[in-house]
Amino acid sequence: MNYEEIFRTALDGLRQEGNYRVFADLERRAGAFPRATFRRDGEEREVTVWCSNDYLGMGQHPDVVAAMQETIARCGAGAGGTRNISGTTHAHVLLEHELADLHGKEAALLFTSGYVSNWAALSTLGAKLPDAVILSDAGNHASMIEGIRHSKADRVIFRHNDVADLEAKLAAIDPARPKIVAFESVYSMDGDIAPIAEICDVAEAYGAMTYLDEVHAVGMYGPRGGGVSEREGLAHRLTIIEGTLGKAFGVMGGYIAGSAAVCDFVRSFASGFIFTTALPPALAAGARAAIRHLKASDSERLAQRDRVAALRAKLDAVGIPHMMNDSHIVPVMVGDPVRCKAITDLLLERHGIYVQPINYPTVARGTERLRITPGPLHTDADMDHLVRSLEACFVSVAELREAAE
Amino acid sequence: MNYEEIFRTALDGLRQEGNYRVFADLERRAGAFPRATFRRDGEEREVTVWCSNDYLGMGQHPDVVAAMQETIARCGAGAGGTRNISGTTHAHVLLEHELADLHGKEAALLFTSGYVSNWAALSTLGAKLPDAVILSDAGNHASMIEGIRHSKADRVIFRHNDVADLEAKLAAIDPARPKIVAFESVYSMDGDIAPIAEICDVAEAYGAMTYLDEVHAVGMYGPRGGGVSEREGLAHRLTIIEGTLGKAFGVMGGYIAGSAAVCDFVRSFASGFIFTTALPPALAAGARAAIRHLKASDSERLAQRDRVAALRAKLDAVGIPHMMNDSHIVPVMVGDPVRCKAITDLLLERHGIYVQPINYPTVARGTERLRITPGPLHTDADMDHLVRSLEACFVSVAELREAAE
Repeated sequence: MNYEEIFRTALDGLRQEGNYRVFADLERRAGAFPRATFRRDGEEREVTVWCSNDYLGMGQHPDVVAAMQETIARCGAGAGGTRNISGTTHAHVLLEHELADLHGKEAALLFTSGYVSNWAALSTLGAKLPDAVILSDAGNHASMIEGIRHSKADRVIFRHNDVADLEAKLAAIDPARPKIVAFESVYSMDGDIAPIAEICDVAEAYGAMTYLDEVHAVGMYGPRGGGVSEREGLAHRLTIIEGTLGKAFGVMGGYIAGSAAVCDFVRSFASGFIFTTALPPALAAGARAAIRHLKASDSERLAQRDRVAALRAKLDAVGIPHMMNDSHIVPVMVGDPVRCKAITDLLLERHGIYVQPINYPTVARGTERLRITPGPLHTDADMDHLVRSLEACFVSVAELREAAE
Repeated sequence: MNYEEIFRTALDGLRQEGNYRVFADLERRAGAFPRATFRRDGEEREVTVWCSNDYLGMGQHPDVVAAMQETIARCGAGAGGTRNISGTTHAHVLLEHELADLHGKEAALLFTSGYVSNWAALSTLGAKLPDAVILSDAGNHASMIEGIRHSKADRVIFRHNDVADLEAKLAAIDPARPKIVAFESVYSMDGDIAPIAEICDVAEAYGAMTYLDEVHAVGMYGPRGGGVSEREGLAHRLTIIEGTLGKAFGVMGGYIAGSAAVCDFVRSFASGFIFTTALPPALAAGARAAIRHLKASDSERLAQRDRVAALRAKLDAVGIPHMMNDSHIVPVMVGDPVRCKAITDLLLERHGIYVQPINYPTVARGTERLRITPGPLHTDADMDHLVRSLEACFVSVAELREAAE
């Protein structure tokens, strides 16, 4: 059996489709975000990053940097064990309190990533609630899909953000069965926002738990950064709110917040929580510093919104099409993986602009795009440069393709 | 449907079995390992940690601390994205080169944890190799079991470390099917070591890939810390070596090392790799510093072995039973969850010694134990104190139980 041949053939298939991924070797410069050093073939260049999920630049915030450095000096590098076996430090305890407070819940539970929090929480709830059904929005993130699949619970997919379809599907399920409605507030790739109140209405009417992924919203929405559910005064109606420490909070890690009992239940039964080394205490301390800052400060959120509006206006002024939504994500649609990659290659080569092409399987084939995330640190001059460069690259790629045909 | 009631009932069940876990709130003190501050009910006490997986104390090593602090100052807190979307920093690239070199492989691939590396790599290989069968040692870690289960590939469990049983099971499988033999080098809870050469012999004879989890061995065994496979000159015979950055290397994260094609294959198809925020660059830099140090320095490994031998001799001198093995893990058997917890509670209360009780589901019911991991930083005086305290607690718990009967 020639395993190497199997692997190489599969990779060749990706290349032929235009879906083979090349990672850009970058190094952001603290204090100079969104600038980064791009390295390739031994050469270094400065680039501007336009697709970071560190949406507010909190990764370079002095409070966050100081909390991490101080904690490393005091406690060392890693946690040294699982949460149960020597790995629960005081920094973890404090962060879980901070997160429970952020969402107005009794408790919170940390995971090593947002992916793991979704996977572990949904797979545990689906597997351990007897005869459970999970109702999953068609647009849910891979981590939720994998968690639901792993739970082996019955899964019912409802149409994306379609409350009537959700209600019809809830109505068709035996009322005696436990039900979990799993959805997101801000969908990462289209940037659209769920009708949370309406989803809670039907979930409550049919006796279902609600599980809301706010990974792209925590820190970004609500007066204290508690997410869209905070902004809309709905946090108390959600059974579980899931979030990340790795996007607007600028660090790494994931969590759920909910009742003391549900957090303790997941804590006690989730393989992906129990059998893994805890987050380093410095990450917990850094994330807590970011959360505390964004609970008290609205200026980053306001600046971010201003930058999104400014970029959309500049794109409109030159006629570059972008998908409308009510969030901070600006999808510039391309619709072809090869063209999408060619445009981003040109942006990088000729203009020092880094935007990763978003191709299948992250988005559906035919909806390939540039996913642009303007932040409070992008200046007007950065935006003018981006828009001019996009215009030039769209034209160049079209010309190249015509020449090839 | 009263979900809260379901959760509380399940938790009460754990409490009645003696398997409810209470996390100790600890804070190790860099420069003073294995000492830590233990907090409960607003009070603070100094304790000595005897169950850390930071086996060599690398979490407080000046090179590791300096690398992390310098990287945070230079690049900020988090990676800001997935590996594909703005999250590959130069620190990740350098660490993957370092890991490939550590195991003498063409390539390595980082994950956010050892758990995720096993889960993602095995679930991807099992799902994507057409009609694959995974042969799994009966003692494998939860992360491997969950990855195999998630792959939906056929799974065949062979008796723990039993090469004859593995061979019989390989012989019974259609030679045309892809096969993966998945096992560990050092098993975490019993501390026993796999017959790697013999397993490679039969895997090669039957055309199977080999997947070796060295999480408890990397940094600890072999002249450069490449694990048991390096010590025995077998690394080149293994298709994939999986390891962690969160135990002997003192930080956090996981990885696989193997051919360029197999790493690229997992990189390109593993959901748990693709759709998750990358490790913070500071963790990558800290782990690389630890690996480089332990490639060049044998003194930590030698001191660690000396400490294990010294503790075993002291336990023998007073007749405290401990399971023999050839590794660094000293399991002191108790065999009952309630008694196990009572002993560790007394160690903490009366003697300032922190050892977490190891109960089901981490080990089989009836094999509950104290899992002691002596390190280079435990002194003779620490050991004498531990052994005297263990003696006293075993006696006290026996007396309490007699009084109760």
